[in-house]
Parts: sequence; C-alpha cells; structure tokens
Amino acid sequence: MHILVLGAAGMVGRKFLERVAADGHIGGREVRMATLHDVVMPSAPAGATFACDCRASDFAMAGESARLIAGRPDLIVHLAAIVSGEAEADFEKGYRINLDGTRELFEAIRLAGGGYRPRVVFTSSIAVFGAPFHPKIADEFHLTPLTSYGTQKAIGELLLSDYSRRGFFDGIGIRLPTICVRPGTPNKAASGFFSNIIREPLAGREAVLPVSEDVRHWHASPRSAVGFLMHAATMDLSALGARRNLSMPGLSCTVGEQIAALERVAGPRVTARIQRKPDATIQGIVAGWPRDLDPQRAIALGFKAESSFDEIIKVHIADELNGSFAA
Amino acid sequence: MHILVLGAAGMVGRKFLERVAADGHIGGREVRMATLHDVVMPSAPAGATFACDCRASDFAMAGESARLIAGRPDLIVHLAAIVSGEAEADFEKGYRINLDGTRELFEAIRLAGGGYRPRVVFTSSIAVFGAPFHPKIADEFHLTPLTSYGTQKAIGELLLSDYSRRGFFDGIGIRLPTICVRPGTPNKAASGFFSNIIREPLAGREAVLPVSEDVRHWHASPRSAVGFLMHAATMDLSALGARRNLSMPGLSCTVGEQIAALERVAGPRVTARIQRKPDATIQGIVAGWPRDLDPQRAIALGFKAESSFDEIIKVHIADELNGSFAA
Repeated sequence: MHILVLGAAGMVGRKFLERVAADGHIGGREVRMATLHDVVMPSAPAGATFACDCRASDFAMAGESARLIAGRPDLIVHLAAIVSGEAEADFEKGYRINLDGTRELFEAIRLAGGGYRPRVVFTSSIAVFGAPFHPKIADEFHLTPLTSYGTQKAIGELLLSDYSRRGFFDGIGIRLPTICVRPGTPNKAASGFFSNIIREPLAGREAVLPVSEDVRHWHASPRSAVGFLMHAATMDLSALGARRNLSMPGLSCTVGEQIAALERVAGPRVTARIQRKPDATIQGIVAGWPRDLDPQRAIALGFKAESSFDEIIKVHIADELNGSFAA
Repeated sequence: MHILVLGAAGMVGRKFLERVAADGHIGGREVRMATLHDVVMPSAPAGATFACDCRASDFAMAGESARLIAGRPDLIVHLAAIVSGEAEADFEKGYRINLDGTRELFEAIRLAGGGYRPRVVFTSSIAVFGAPFHPKIADEFHLTPLTSYGTQKAIGELLLSDYSRRGFFDGIGIRLPTICVRPGTPNKAASGFFSNIIREPLAGREAVLPVSEDVRHWHASPRSAVGFLMHAATMDLSALGARRNLSMPGLSCTVGEQIAALERVAGPRVTARIQRKPDATIQGIVAGWPRDLDPQRAIALGFKAESSFDEIIKVHIADELNGSFAA
C-alpha cells in the first residue's frame, strides 16, 4: 500500500512512521511507498523497507494537495496543523492552514476521479470542547470551542463527515487527548507543564509547576496516540455509521496524582525537582480546558489508552529514556 | 439605523421587512435605511418610511460582501442560503453559497476596519441535528448533520461564534423550526406536506399527505420566525456568553394532531380535503428529522413560539387569509 502522512515532521507523525517502519505493514497490508510531507523537510524513518518521498511545502497552497495525492495513496493520515497558540495569535494563518488546507485536501480527493476513495485519518483535538462542561464530557456533548484552533478542528470534523457520507473518501476523525509525556525540550505552550513536570525531573533537571495540584486534565502517551492512528487506519469504519468523529480514550488525573505517580515510579528525589510557581495567567487558561471525558464509543470500537499515570511515565522511560532515568 | 437583509426576497425576509416597515423602528431605534439583497431582485416593503437600496447579485462572488456592507449597516440579517434539497443535489453550489458566501460576509466585516462591529443575526436550522436523537433534543446535544445543507449551517454557526468571540462582530445564530404554515403554492420539498395539508384545504383545495399520522415534527409560524429575528436583533447578547447559537422554541406535534387542530379550527369539511397517499421515499427522509426539542436557553432568553397547533393555524388564517377560509 501507499501512505501519505501530512505533518510527518511533527512528534506524532515521526512516531507513527517509526512504527510503520518497524512493522513494515499496516493492518497486514505491506507498505511499499510513503509520501511524507510537512512545512519543514521530514525525514524518512530509520529502517524503513519502503520508498519514502519526502516533501516540504505549504500544503494549503493552490494545487498542492492535488500534487500530494497524485500517487493515489490508499491511506492519508492528516496531522498537519497550526497549533492552538499560533492559530490564536495569527487568525489568518490558522484559518488558511487548518481550515482551507484541510478543505483543499478533501476537495483534491473528491476531484481526483476514477473511483479514488482513500481512507482519511484526521486528528482532531479535545479543544473542540469549551467550558462549561459536565464532570465527564460524553460522546453526545456539543462542540463549543473557545479558540480559533478548536473552531477549525470542529469544522474539519464536519467536513470529514459530509465528504465521507457523500462517498468521496472513507474518513475518521480522532480527538486526541493532551499527549503526555511529550519528549523534547520545554516549550511555551500553556499545556507544556503537564509534560515538563515529568520529563525534566526524570532527566535530572528542575521543572516549574504553574498551577495548583488539584488541576485535572486528560492525557494519553505518545505510544497511545500512535496506537489510535493505527487502529483508525485499519478498523472497519462501517461501524461508525454517519458519526465519523470520536473522542479518544485517555486518562483523567490531577497534577497531584501525576506527581504521586512520579514518586511511585522514580522516588522522592525526582519529584523534589518540581518547583511550585503559581502563574495566574496559566491557571486561567487551564480552567477552560476539558478535565475528563467518557469516550464510550471509541472504547467500544477498540481504541485503547493507559489506565494509570504510572503507566504513562513508564512508557516515557521505556520509549524515550532507554529504560533509565536520573534517580 | 441602517439594516442589511441578505435573502430579502425569501418568505422570511419579506415578512421581516414588512414588520420593520410597519414598526418603523427596531428595538426603539428608527430605521433610516435598508439594503435588501437576494439572488433575484427583492422588493421594498409596502409602506416603508425608510430608504430601500434593493440589489440582486451572487453574494458569494469575490468582493460582493464588501460592497454590501460598504454602508456599514448596524444590523445584518443573514438569511441567504441554498436550501436543503438543492445543496444536496448540487454539492459545489451549496458549499459555495452556504459556506463560502457566509465566510466572505464574515471576512468582509472583519476587514472593514475603523471599529466596525455590527450585530449579525444568522439563521441556522434544525438540519444541524441528525438521527439518532433523544426524544427531545437538548441544548447541549451535538451537531451531526446528515445533509450537506446541515453541515454548512453547522459550520456557519462555528464561524459565527469564533468571529464573535474575537470581537469582529456581535453575532447570534438561531436554529429555526420548520416554518408552518408556509404560504404560497405547494413545492416539492420533502417537508412541504406539513404546510400543504393545512394551507390547501383552507383554500378549498385538496392536499396529499404522504406519511402516516404518527409522524412527529417541530414547527413555528412565519409570524414566530419574524419574532425570533426581531428578538435576536434587539436582545442583550452578552447573556449568550461564548455560546452564540440557539435552538429556537417551537411546537412539537404529530401529523394526526395537526389534522385534529385543523378540524377544531375549520371543521370536518376542510379536513376531508386531505388525501392519504403514503410515499415510502418521503417517509424515509422524514424519519431522520428532529421531532422535538427542549430549547431551554432560548426560552429563558425570551424567545417565544406558539403553544398549540390551533394557534399556528389561526396565525395563518389571520396573516395570509384575511381572517376567512373556504369552509
């Protein structure tokens, strides 16, 4: 099969491609060709036995989507997006990439002709939900995003459903939890501290906690995110009916529970590296975020995430730190 | 004040303008100027004391929205749409008018500059909802449209919320029930029979009922629709918070209850003009439509509809038939 990954240079894209390279197949179908695209040049995954066509461009540019699907990929994994903070800071750029880019891609598929009907896996986000919430956000809860990013993702979901219903492609949208523990260096995203307070202490460095320990949030590991993509790429989509967008499973826990898990897994010398420096701005932003979901449909359809934060930490130590940490 | 009505030649647009002409003001502010737009040339309402600038064009055409708002209307009532059946039959036209046209309008307002921030009243539809439903659709139920029209309206709602949140305009979206009794001649819309079985017998003509009498649906009169628009144009929108789109109140009743009301209001000789001719296609379409809603927010915010189908029939006789009918 031929796959196209948009957003292939991002963290989730790279991990998905590493998994594909390791497996050599997706759902039993051998991968013979991968088109990897991002705004910066993506790298072919190490050990890939399939040909990789790596491209860097602005995918919302006129005609670009048509060029990207010219090889008629069987599976399109659409991870490309301007992230939340940037889409809020730059209104036009967010709409151009996240809405127009997504629509151009869907239009290119529709207009390709010749019976072309690929599977499209679209990553949405819990940012489609906006407070006030119920304690657990149910599958039938309405989408009232409080950011332009969340708005653009919700529109992408609606388009994906309509294009799928029309038979232009076979689409599934998956709303990812916050990915934790995010590898790499601390960034300035308001959500960064959820990962920073685990990753940095495990690396022997101090981390800042800007919110109180009773803040509750919704997490899944990078490994689970790749698992969601794989399952979305291979499952029988007829089970979805007309409702093509699903909240993914995750783990709801408080920051205090994150820290307790870190102490169980790595000991008190590690958790002592967390510095509490309350930041009213970040507290305010985080207050509007989903805390817990009840993703019954996705669970019934076979999507799986971690069941404890201890497990999320152990996945990070195994996948990113070769099994060891700075005790 | 200066108002702009898009879709001014349609039934709801004409009735809204007649009401504005009769009142001479909107919420106590004298109307001095009205820009009326539609794809066919709209007419100025009889008795208007304000200047009417009537225009016909394709409002989704590049630059057209900017021209339409060049006079900086204080209130924009956006009723323009390709209707459900046509948007389903002509995919590209539906998206071009209902999505691109709406977005162009919103963009024109955003880019007008100089602190321009009009009120925008956008008519959405219960077509944003798609089966399976709960017996009553609550305000927090998710939008899973089963038509391209419903998808386009749901996207319009999301854009309206985001543009309002950003402060580009002060928007409100109102999801209209099926408007009944619709004046005019029978049309081929699948929903046409809900009005036909009342309007035609009252005019002394026979009407066809293609569904069984236990079919339940959600109705409001044209007079109520105008009342919704007036209230949306004048109410304090700060009460909406970030959730700018509301299901309007209506009346849920079965076809059997419609006919019983007609018999109470007009007698058995009138209801005898209804011919039962079951049509499996129409039965199938209607099965996917909302039957009942629980629009608590709109009611709490002061929106009002009829409380019985008898009242809906009496409104039709008063407003369309000068108080009499063919007994």
